[in-house]
Amino acid sequence: MAVYTEVSDDELASFIASYGLGQLLSFKGIAEGVENTNYIVHTSKGTFILTLYEKRVEVADLPFYLGLMDHLAAHGLSCPTPVHDAAGRALGTLAGRPAALVTFLEGFWVRHPTAAHCAAVGRAMAEMHLGGDGFALRRENALGLSGWRPLYERFSARASEIDPDLSALIEGELNHLEASWPQNLPQGIIHADLFPDNVFFLDDKLSGLIDFYFACNDALAYDIAVSLNAWCFEKDLSFNITKGRAFLRGYEAVRKLTPAERDAMPTLARGAAMRFLLTRAYDWLHTPKDALVSPKNPIEYVRRLRFHQGVRSIADYGLNGAS
Amino acid sequence: MAVYTEVSDDELASFIASYGLGQLLSFKGIAEGVENTNYIVHTSKGTFILTLYEKRVEVADLPFYLGLMDHLAAHGLSCPTPVHDAAGRALGTLAGRPAALVTFLEGFWVRHPTAAHCAAVGRAMAEMHLGGDGFALRRENALGLSGWRPLYERFSARASEIDPDLSALIEGELNHLEASWPQNLPQGIIHADLFPDNVFFLDDKLSGLIDFYFACNDALAYDIAVSLNAWCFEKDLSFNITKGRAFLRGYEAVRKLTPAERDAMPTLARGAAMRFLLTRAYDWLHTPKDALVSPKNPIEYVRRLRFHQGVRSIADYGLNGAS
Repeated sequence: MAVYTEVSDDELASFIASYGLGQLLSFKGIAEGVENTNYIVHTSKGTFILTLYEKRVEVADLPFYLGLMDHLAAHGLSCPTPVHDAAGRALGTLAGRPAALVTFLEGFWVRHPTAAHCAAVGRAMAEMHLGGDGFALRRENALGLSGWRPLYERFSARASEIDPDLSALIEGELNHLEASWPQNLPQGIIHADLFPDNVFFLDDKLSGLIDFYFACNDALAYDIAVSLNAWCFEKDLSFNITKGRAFLRGYEAVRKLTPAERDAMPTLARGAAMRFLLTRAYDWLHTPKDALVSPKNPIEYVRRLRFHQGVRSIADYGLNGAS
Repeated sequence: MAVYTEVSDDELASFIASYGLGQLLSFKGIAEGVENTNYIVHTSKGTFILTLYEKRVEVADLPFYLGLMDHLAAHGLSCPTPVHDAAGRALGTLAGRPAALVTFLEGFWVRHPTAAHCAAVGRAMAEMHLGGDGFALRRENALGLSGWRPLYERFSARASEIDPDLSALIEGELNHLEASWPQNLPQGIIHADLFPDNVFFLDDKLSGLIDFYFACNDALAYDIAVSLNAWCFEKDLSFNITKGRAFLRGYEAVRKLTPAERDAMPTLARGAAMRFLLTRAYDWLHTPKDALVSPKNPIEYVRRLRFHQGVRSIADYGLNGAS
């Protein structure tokens, strides 16, 4: 929860004027968004979200993120859509920061997802994967396989502050992942962070996806692996195979997995658990005690990783038989 | 900026259901409100603010605040209006906290008020004073004259941490105020905190008043004295007599001041400066370094107080001649 940049009424009114959205009626800073500053803006034309991009976001990546939302919306995906100014630009400047306005998406994220929610998310992810086809821009996955060891080395000397066995676990796992990471899987645009707080529902119907600020080009099946971690574990960190099955069947109702993708799923799931273990461990050790946003406990991803280490095939995630 | 209490979608949906506001479409915690947790709520019937009252608010005072908003709205003042549930109650319980829903007021507060804004606020304050007439509930001003010395005594031992001369200033001024505080001025409901961030404008027209959580029964003219402090000093803490004149004339266009109120204004203004000096000094010394909300500098009110100490009559605030 954070508003990092305060905007004045005069600044905002002149910013809004360039977008042809009518009269500015109100704006309130919202307490969501760890990376950026967000305002809910009412104008006489409707409700919008104004985002000011803070220092952690690479400005060079903003055309990718905004262009992707445009592309996906044009291909039928429900997601926030950038508003363009009279000159056609989605990216502007406000209070000294890169800034963009997007349409407001009604709905809210579910705190206790059911198997039915997981099925809907699987379908939506597959639709996003198909919808991303033909998007002209590229962005490498900075938090993919090649980024994990360098990230680990930035905190390895302090890993024992989290858990005495953490270094051995990470080093062994990185060796395994680097040796066995699947190559040549179908590639495309992935969300890369499709956690429950990035999926909105209305009356148990999925109303849209948000927060494309980790989206990148990578193996499509890796995106599934992220969401198996994010959606299908219970609070006690046991894997719920009913939810896993619902997610995978939902996905396959739109896009069938290839045999190589099915075979790779246990390794991809280990990699996805490693990715969140590493960023959470780094944040855990580097977040100042007085920060506005509390870091999340990395140990939850140790538990997930250990589960995936015991998985033999995609059947253990709930998908049986050939496709 | 703060969301102190997190509400789940299930909890909120069942809370909303009791108000007959249609389907819950979205809710976002907003980064305003030092005292309470506030959410913007969209339902199929419109936009509302949900407030969860945190520990600093006296639960026993909530019927006064909510009833006052109802009363003022019924008497034509533009302000948030409580939504009542099927049983007629404005006050409910959510996530273990007292909670209320009010209508959303469009508009935004002006960061750089002009004399025209001050005139509009003066008119609105007088309308509020007339509109409060007949309101059945009472609330003493806990931050009025009798509260100042006890509040000072809670931090007097540490006052020199703010400024070495602060104790002498406050003690001398408290003696003066207690000896000369005006009695028998016209009484009524006052806002008691009508600062720029509590007045919304749209296109330079006042759209409404918000935040009645300091409202109480006290001398009406004391409310004016608060707002002379809040609206009519420039950033360099010089008094802008053009703004003072605009405020007072705006007020008198709706409700004439009595001769006693005019005579009392310099003393009331000193008292109002003292009230904010004391609460800011207390907060300055007692806010933890890692608090979400930064305390405001109390020294600004030393400067205002010194100005009022040199004032001879209401003419120095811009109002000349008999009413």
